[in-house]
Amino acid sequence: MSKVTVLSVDDIAFLEPYLPRSKDELPFVTLTYASSLDGMISLAPGLRTTLSGSATKSMTHYLRQYHDAILVGVGTVIADDPSLNCRYPGADFEPQPRPIVVDPRARWDYESSKLVQLSLQGKGKKPLLVHVAHGVERKNQDDGVCEHAYLPAEGEGPDSNSSSLDWMSMLMEFKRRGMDSVMIEGGATIISALLRRPELIDSVIVTLAPTWLGAGGVTVQPAERHEGGERVNAARLMGTAWRQFGDDAVLCGRLGT
Amino acid sequence: MSKVTVLSVDDIAFLEPYLPRSKDELPFVTLTYASSLDGMISLAPGLRTTLSGSATKSMTHYLRQYHDAILVGVGTVIADDPSLNCRYPGADFEPQPRPIVVDPRARWDYESSKLVQLSLQGKGKKPLLVHVAHGVERKNQDDGVCEHAYLPAEGEGPDSNSSSLDWMSMLMEFKRRGMDSVMIEGGATIISALLRRPELIDSVIVTLAPTWLGAGGVTVQPAERHEGGERVNAARLMGTAWRQFGDDAVLCGRLGT
Repeated sequence: MSKVTVLSVDDIAFLEPYLPRSKDELPFVTLTYASSLDGMISLAPGLRTTLSGSATKSMTHYLRQYHDAILVGVGTVIADDPSLNCRYPGADFEPQPRPIVVDPRARWDYESSKLVQLSLQGKGKKPLLVHVAHGVERKNQDDGVCEHAYLPAEGEGPDSNSSSLDWMSMLMEFKRRGMDSVMIEGGATIISALLRRPELIDSVIVTLAPTWLGAGGVTVQPAERHEGGERVNAARLMGTAWRQFGDDAVLCGRLGT
Repeated sequence: MSKVTVLSVDDIAFLEPYLPRSKDELPFVTLTYASSLDGMISLAPGLRTTLSGSATKSMTHYLRQYHDAILVGVGTVIADDPSLNCRYPGADFEPQPRPIVVDPRARWDYESSKLVQLSLQGKGKKPLLVHVAHGVERKNQDDGVCEHAYLPAEGEGPDSNSSSLDWMSMLMEFKRRGMDSVMIEGGATIISALLRRPELIDSVIVTLAPTWLGAGGVTVQPAERHEGGERVNAARLMGTAWRQFGDDAVLCGRLGT
């Protein structure tokens, strides 16, 4: 595992405009992921794929220390068993971000996961798991190793059959729990959905690795979009800045509406 | 149409290591395309899509003046009706690159195309069309507005049923005709195939635009690749350099083997 090192002064200055600022109603949300040139985050579903180099890995840890929570989808924790903690040099336990796992149907078997182990060892915060309530009145609970929050499904209120969570309710719940900033790191389904929600996302930070994973990989690809009967770009960034980090490039910006 | 402007001294220094050098047997081949962050070059097949900004457009014209030929596939000329000439300030007619269209089954109706019009007006070289010979002895010919070359199909010699051309034969034919450098600009099928042919490609120059086109677009995506039974990256770049051009980034490198 490559070492997390201190960023240069220029790297830090480059990232500064995109770091969390305080907001009133919702947490500041940073969307971040690493992609190949063919828009993929992994070679196959469930297959852990190292895309970015050590410089951008250090950047991820640098960014984590500015966020109260790190959010990923259940597919990512099952595939990667990530730590999601901040290992940037000098970051102590106290500013560790809370891991949040979006697991609508509660399918993650978390007992032996790194996230739970790190929390039990006092090296990370207790993970928060977010599930779909599905109309049933489920009380939020703490089972000792994880906290569980039950939130409405997307769209149609308490009777919805959707297994997707409602992002607005989720972000409000995080704010209610005192989290003022959330860094969303994956997987492809979550990133693709949120690229279409500029009203919820404050910063986007994408790492591009100079490689192509090839047909059959897992793509970040927002749903197509039409305006006035014509196909238009699904999403675009404004106020963009690019910088080379090792062999990779990092792109920062804000989603245009 | 945005104006083609002179690049900065720093832009020029950035591109310099990736410009054509002389080679013995084959032309120097530059592979170049502009892509969205989800790896797409257009919103839909046949739909002309403007991806990159004016700065990278100027870069394309800068690069064209260093190449003897600009090659695209028949799908691109049908969709875009491009000029493929060099409009970099100060570039006169004489160094104009020759347009080459890879049209295996001779399906392009070129009479009223911009390429032919520019050639008839003396503002561009006569286009060279490359067709599959399909075992039939077809003589290369010049019909007054275009030259036609008949070359073997990929793979299996004169009896092949393939409608894809054999790249090695093509490049040798270009060299035989005095072209020492070829810039290949598209479309997605050609780029995707050649990303798997590091032995033929000398430089790769990719423009990344800070946008996502969304599901259903036309992707540059090499075929998947296996090594020792495991899926591995389909292609990767070595000796990479990135630079911001306007809102876009330009990535230069050489294909690793």
